Amino acid sequence: MELPREVTIREVGTRDGIQILGVQIPTDQKIELIERLVEAGIRRIEATSFVHPKYVPQMADAEAVMRSVRRKPGVSYEVLVPNARGAERALSVGVDRLVLVVAASETFNQKNVRMSLADSFKSFEEIARLAREAHVPIKGGLATSFGCPYEGGVSEARVHQVIQRFVDLGADEVGLADTTGMANPGQVSTMIPPIRERWPELHLGLHFHNTRGMGLANVLAGLQVGITMYDASIGGMGGCPFAPRATGNVCTEDTVHMLEEMGVSTGASVSGLIDCARFAADLVGAELPGQVMKAGPRAQIAA
Amino acid sequence: MELPREVTIREVGTRDGIQILGVQIPTDQKIELIERLVEAGIRRIEATSFVHPKYVPQMADAEAVMRSVRRKPGVSYEVLVPNARGAERALSVGVDRLVLVVAASETFNQKNVRMSLADSFKSFEEIARLAREAHVPIKGGLATSFGCPYEGGVSEARVHQVIQRFVDLGADEVGLADTTGMANPGQVSTMIPPIRERWPELHLGLHFHNTRGMGLANVLAGLQVGITMYDASIGGMGGCPFAPRATGNVCTEDTVHMLEEMGVSTGASVSGLIDCARFAADLVGAELPGQVMKAGPRAQIAA
Repeated sequence: MELPREVTIREVGTRDGIQILGVQIPTDQKIELIERLVEAGIRRIEATSFVHPKYVPQMADAEAVMRSVRRKPGVSYEVLVPNARGAERALSVGVDRLVLVVAASETFNQKNVRMSLADSFKSFEEIARLAREAHVPIKGGLATSFGCPYEGGVSEARVHQVIQRFVDLGADEVGLADTTGMANPGQVSTMIPPIRERWPELHLGLHFHNTRGMGLANVLAGLQVGITMYDASIGGMGGCPFAPRATGNVCTEDTVHMLEEMGVSTGASVSGLIDCARFAADLVGAELPGQVMKAGPRAQIAA
Repeated sequence: MELPREVTIREVGTRDGIQILGVQIPTDQKIELIERLVEAGIRRIEATSFVHPKYVPQMADAEAVMRSVRRKPGVSYEVLVPNARGAERALSVGVDRLVLVVAASETFNQKNVRMSLADSFKSFEEIARLAREAHVPIKGGLATSFGCPYEGGVSEARVHQVIQRFVDLGADEVGLADTTGMANPGQVSTMIPPIRERWPELHLGLHFHNTRGMGLANVLAGLQVGITMYDASIGGMGGCPFAPRATGNVCTEDTVHMLEEMGVSTGASVSGLIDCARFAADLVGAELPGQVMKAGPRAQIAA
């Protein structure tokens, strides 16, 4: 099995993992979780989201989080911004990357941000300008890249169109998100190579959800076609608004554990991440879906 | 991605899935679950275990289950037998296959059945004779094939030795079990091909546990090296005695869902299996780890 030697894990727990959470996590606890994750070896983190507090109350403290979190050199503290106002707020407190998200599916985008894709990209132009002026890179995120809960299948042609729009906007990096866990490994395996061929310079990341249990199998399929960047949420924190009892993002420590077991280096410590996952479980006051935090890492067993 | 066109799912929920369960499931409910699974398209089922009731009280009704379950033609009703007494009991009520299990790890075998591997195989000789006389095929199961919670790594040479002993015993089929979820996809990918090469006529099955979240990724790795038989437990029923909060066997309907989504035919119905999983959850009175039973199959979404 041909696998990359090194992979980057982009932690999204304090953004995607908690945004639909019922309980409001205190700002200092969010900061502590971010700092602990970095201590455990995470080098890229989508720390928070500068959305309007009316829509996502959990993220009302985005400025406070970014102002107070201790920054470790070499670590990229990234944030989601939905519009120019969010970008201004984010840039005013200093961030390493702005993440812009649009859905590949028109229906999903409409329901998610009440805009057509065309209007989303129109609003992104102002964000891109602000980012350029501030010398902050942008990442384009494509929600529902592998399927849409409203429309069903999403064509690869559509995904390519949206990638091109992000490239035109100046994004050096694009993430394909399986927002509601509809991707399967065969699909990952066939969808990725043409994208890599068409945009060889573009950094391509994958963002899987484990909604239907295929999360780590999809990561494996991604590795096999050479993808070296994966989003994940500590403890598997988060969920799916479309399936309240199902899980959300793939779990950070389970992903890192599988990778390290296969000899793929992540730079992160499995035991350090397990500590973070336990801390996260205490914060949300519930058992999290992560498995390695319950079973212990394979490597802890007598060699 | 090269995948087999067809795969056989061996259901083990009413054996491996419930053997360590605290609650005693009534015999008629076990029978109903088996019949429903077959109705949903399962063609091979490890229905029960003829162990001594003192060791596994849940299986005290093995004869009653096998006597009363309605047998569907073309379906293989298989049972685990630990010794000649168990084999006699099983053969007296009619079964399609006897499953003999030994651990590849000496320490695990000692702790599991209080015997050395040599003694286990000595006791298997009598079982094999009884099976031959009754014209019932035997399957050899190798627990801890991918690692042992006591010894750590298990050498491939040892796994080969144990396979050869089962072949010498007359087994036409062998299953490699990852009893405590220690396998990773890279390991599956390297371990399997030499076995297939050495015993090309032997039917080889894989039995994964999802203890560390790698279950379906390991199934994917198995598919890629041509394995077409996988054990699974409905709803992901079961657990791990070595990690009380972690999950057990890979989940039947999640496995079938992934396979069918990739165009690999199983002959089973995802929606039928989801109904079985819900029935199983009612039986055990707890939420089960299966994801597709919570999120719904991908294919239910508007095409």
